[in-house]
Amino acid sequence: MSLHEEVAEEVLDDLTPGADERRRLEAAFEAVRGRAEDALDEYGFDPDVVLVGSAARDTWLSGDRDIDIFILLPPTLDRDRFEEVGLDVGREVFPDGHVEYAEHPYVQGEEDGYDVDLVPCYDLEDASDVRSAVDRTPFHQEYVEQNGYEGFGDDVRLLKAFARGAGVYGSDLRTRGFGGYLCELLVIRYGGFQDVVEAAADWSSPVEIRLQEPTRELEGPLVVVDPVDSDRNVASVVHVDSFSRFVEASRDWLEDPTEEAFRQREPEPIDEEGLGSYLEDRDTGVYAFVFRAPDVVEDQLYPQLRKTLDSMEEELERRGFDLLRTSTFAGDRCVLLLETNVDRQSKVERHEGPPVDVRSHAEEFRDKYADDQEVTGPYVEGGRYVVERPRRHPSVESYLESDDVYDLALGRQIENEIRDGYTVYVDGDCGELLDEFGAEFGRHLHPR
Amino acid sequence: MSLHEEVAEEVLDDLTPGADERRRLEAAFEAVRGRAEDALDEYGFDPDVVLVGSAARDTWLSGDRDIDIFILLPPTLDRDRFEEVGLDVGREVFPDGHVEYAEHPYVQGEEDGYDVDLVPCYDLEDASDVRSAVDRTPFHQEYVEQNGYEGFGDDVRLLKAFARGAGVYGSDLRTRGFGGYLCELLVIRYGGFQDVVEAAADWSSPVEIRLQEPTRELEGPLVVVDPVDSDRNVASVVHVDSFSRFVEASRDWLEDPTEEAFRQREPEPIDEEGLGSYLEDRDTGVYAFVFRAPDVVEDQLYPQLRKTLDSMEEELERRGFDLLRTSTFAGDRCVLLLETNVDRQSKVERHEGPPVDVRSHAEEFRDKYADDQEVTGPYVEGGRYVVERPRRHPSVESYLESDDVYDLALGRQIENEIRDGYTVYVDGDCGELLDEFGAEFGRHLHPR
Repeated sequence: MSLHEEVAEEVLDDLTPGADERRRLEAAFEAVRGRAEDALDEYGFDPDVVLVGSAARDTWLSGDRDIDIFILLPPTLDRDRFEEVGLDVGREVFPDGHVEYAEHPYVQGEEDGYDVDLVPCYDLEDASDVRSAVDRTPFHQEYVEQNGYEGFGDDVRLLKAFARGAGVYGSDLRTRGFGGYLCELLVIRYGGFQDVVEAAADWSSPVEIRLQEPTRELEGPLVVVDPVDSDRNVASVVHVDSFSRFVEASRDWLEDPTEEAFRQREPEPIDEEGLGSYLEDRDTGVYAFVFRAPDVVEDQLYPQLRKTLDSMEEELERRGFDLLRTSTFAGDRCVLLLETNVDRQSKVERHEGPPVDVRSHAEEFRDKYADDQEVTGPYVEGGRYVVERPRRHPSVESYLESDDVYDLALGRQIENEIRDGYTVYVDGDCGELLDEFGAEFGRHLHPR
Repeated sequence: MSLHEEVAEEVLDDLTPGADERRRLEAAFEAVRGRAEDALDEYGFDPDVVLVGSAARDTWLSGDRDIDIFILLPPTLDRDRFEEVGLDVGREVFPDGHVEYAEHPYVQGEEDGYDVDLVPCYDLEDASDVRSAVDRTPFHQEYVEQNGYEGFGDDVRLLKAFARGAGVYGSDLRTRGFGGYLCELLVIRYGGFQDVVEAAADWSSPVEIRLQEPTRELEGPLVVVDPVDSDRNVASVVHVDSFSRFVEASRDWLEDPTEEAFRQREPEPIDEEGLGSYLEDRDTGVYAFVFRAPDVVEDQLYPQLRKTLDSMEEELERRGFDLLRTSTFAGDRCVLLLETNVDRQSKVERHEGPPVDVRSHAEEFRDKYADDQEVTGPYVEGGRYVVERPRRHPSVESYLESDDVYDLALGRQIENEIRDGYTVYVDGDCGELLDEFGAEFGRHLHPR
């Protein structure tokens, strides 16, 4: 047995659910199914209530507390009726549950410590008939079951835990990483955990895995054509940085197989002292732009935060401030964290005009600035007119605290919050955020 | 009479040498010629000693104190003998004179307040036989005399004074502007002062004036093919900024004809108070890099100074310091004057590595930095590895005062002086230079 196999076997002991855990999950599922079937009786039809996802395929990680249970409703129901039945049943099964929204609403509730998504979907014969993303799930289930093998669950568990260790497990829009179904498909494609990792160590983007011929061009560093939908890249959410970290982790594992690779690494929270010495060592400008978090799920929030942060970065660069690093995270408040090379520039900025020998433009430019007491020039340099104008915001702080930030491409929901008020913490003042965001600051300040 | 003509006429009164001045110059020339012919007698040949240049063509400006007198030696003399005769005669004519070096040595002396260049050249039949640049002068003389017209001298005087007013009169390598012969050719080409200026207001580089067909491709914003040498651009020394200032001055004159246009504008010297308020208004970094001037003529010095300054600028930009403006000037000391946007940056700099998925490069990069306690990273950003390294010179001052400046492309003679020692004056400390260089600082700080 190779060292890699030995370590993997060791790790699997912890990753694989034991008999008790399986029984308990099974019991939770049965309880929900029972109540759901009772509730459905009232509607006069008798649909299947099925366990789907990793729990159903025996690819779930010990300790996972999420179960997906689907209610397969007849395709003859129209959309409104379908949603109504789904929600009514959900509310009867989980009187204390709450409604979540994906492509359509569903109820989330708790059963014996498990978080249960109780999701209605159409019971279809053919994958080409799917009406929404969740309708695809039973077909995914079928594909994985047909292509699994003895020991398949172990390989998938290893791969999931490995991706988690690399910080890239999950297809949510915060992580932008490797979801469960993608992990299963990779194991099917390459034949096992070790085979996936050996391939990934040599991946060069774009990597395309055709489990069937795609019907359109699919983009991303990793393209895995969904075997049940030729239009769809299962890995579409995988960001190039998640892809890269997975590749990097694969090389590390091949070179040095340790249990560490499967351990979720929590960033070391940073304290005021750590922040202080960081600032002193670097002499950069550190800015936290903070506002109240809007009431939306992470999958809606993070794309907006990133869009806002990108726009802010771009605008600062345009104003001559070089960025070293940025990141964004949220709890009750949202934080856009920016680190700049300098905190202020001179009070003047060069502004290049037209070549002097392009007469009409040159004369227009000169007339515009000739009597402006605030500018230096126009003077001639390299055959062009140049003026030096007062810089609107000599400091990063001045810019961030000005109304000019409202001109940024702000995400819709966060724009409202920002307009309601925001605070800019500068350098050491960021210490006030460490109680709430110590770990996130830790991850930002010591990136890997 | 148009307003332009009126003003020009007015100005000409001052520019045109009066009868006394003409007689005095003629007398000075005759005195030098007499002594030169006496000296030449000893050698047993009887060459012509002639007045050349603007004095000979009646295109000189009243008050000019420079006379060029050429000794036309037989082309049968070999180079060594030619130089020997030239120098011996020169020394006899001007016992207190001194030797200058152009393409070959000659003697410069004083006669009745005039600075006289007494230059030997070959007496050739045909311009295609010229052996050095000075041999061309008699042919220039001939061309201008043949193409002049009634009032030509006045037009040339106006143009010279006009170029001087624009700060671009002179083909020396400090000015990089419009020399006397070039002014004459422009007047010949366009037909008069006003015609030159009307054309120049609309010049768009490159401007080519073919007084004959060129025999090779000539470059520069202004190309004037020498009528006596088809290989040569008479305006080759004209820098794009001199070209642009001339164009600009032409437009100004057309729009608003004033005597001011012909007045040499001396920059307002700046004092410590002026420097102080300049610095406060701008919050830039001002640095004067100062060293002893090497013992070379300006035509050798300025190209070296500019080369050094360019190299310094480039290096500072490479290190992330944006330049606002630079200039260089010299007296007993040389000054490289630089103004930067910021005086210091953070202590760290980003260094981008290879894409993570280019395995061999990525592994090499990571291995190189993985255990380096001085760097942050390697971390992944946009699919590439990035590290942040300590910046070698966080401040401009630290760079300028370090031995790294010896790696610049330094001009040959000034390299020796710099290695002998230099001083960096920062911001207000530059005040110490204002006694010597107040005007030059004035021109730099208030450019036009």
